Amino acid sequence: MKKEEYFMRLAIEEAKKAADQEEVPIGAIAVYRDQVIGRGYNLRERTNDATSHAEMQAIRGANKFLNNWRLRDVDLYVTLEPCSMCAGAIVLSRIRCVYYGASDPKAGAAGSLMNLLQDDRLNHVCEVVSGVLKEENQKLLKDFFKDLRKKRKINSRKHLR
Amino acid sequence: MKKEEYFMRLAIEEAKKAADQEEVPIGAIAVYRDQVIGRGYNLRERTNDATSHAEMQAIRGANKFLNNWRLRDVDLYVTLEPCSMCAGAIVLSRIRCVYYGASDPKAGAAGSLMNLLQDDRLNHVCEVVSGVLKEENQKLLKDFFKDLRKKRKINSRKHLR
Repeated sequence: MKKEEYFMRLAIEEAKKAADQEEVPIGAIAVYRDQVIGRGYNLRERTNDATSHAEMQAIRGANKFLNNWRLRDVDLYVTLEPCSMCAGAIVLSRIRCVYYGASDPKAGAAGSLMNLLQDDRLNHVCEVVSGVLKEENQKLLKDFFKDLRKKRKINSRKHLR
Repeated sequence: MKKEEYFMRLAIEEAKKAADQEEVPIGAIAVYRDQVIGRGYNLRERTNDATSHAEMQAIRGANKFLNNWRLRDVDLYVTLEPCSMCAGAIVLSRIRCVYYGASDPKAGAAGSLMNLLQDDRLNHVCEVVSGVLKEENQKLLKDFFKDLRKKRKINSRKHLR
């Protein structure tokens, strides 16, 4: 298995932890010298914290592990294209390379709506590799929302009785 | 005193707490129905956390206070124009209005480099009021960096002895 697929599978494992808690399944992993030093998954609903995205937790974990806010030789693997908040945090922490799975045409800030990771007016420019295990990552989100719609339908039927 | 100046002065008080800890003085306050429900100041160096910006702490405080990730009737007062991470977090949390003091021509994402707070492709658009106590906020940062350069000069002299 290619290294980037190996680490993306670990990010997918994180995303599944979110789905298990009925959160939108997005997961992230921070890697330093082939070692996982930060991980996270979306927990917005459960924590009621708008900033509780997978990437933010993985970055904070890596900051803590290295005892440094600069993550110069750290790579980030994330199942969905980062939003502008997370892309901003990635640039601020000087992450080397971002590997992401599915694109986010509605809010993606790493190539879709904008590309904050490679805006040379900012004080750091990342490498970006998109579409890592793309189909698998797209399916993960698609299945989650399909399931959610099904559950909502059942709940609204219950309500009618 | 105008209401926006009153709350901006509270944000300046937060910024001064950062300066007292030798952090770049940036402060923020979250206000809901004229009540301060979140506050924060820049603590990047002390916490070694790249995401430890004033606005992020104020938003998380407000999320906690309201037990809700949606901050629909919440206003944010911040001494410096938000960066792209913080602007992203502001949009994600649906903050109503952002009042900021000094502009940031190097990294400002609320009008200077870009305007993420008013990008109608995203799922929320904020009101923005810039230049609140502008001179005072500019001076706060200018004095801090002047002082820092002075200290560094003394330290490098010490080093030469």
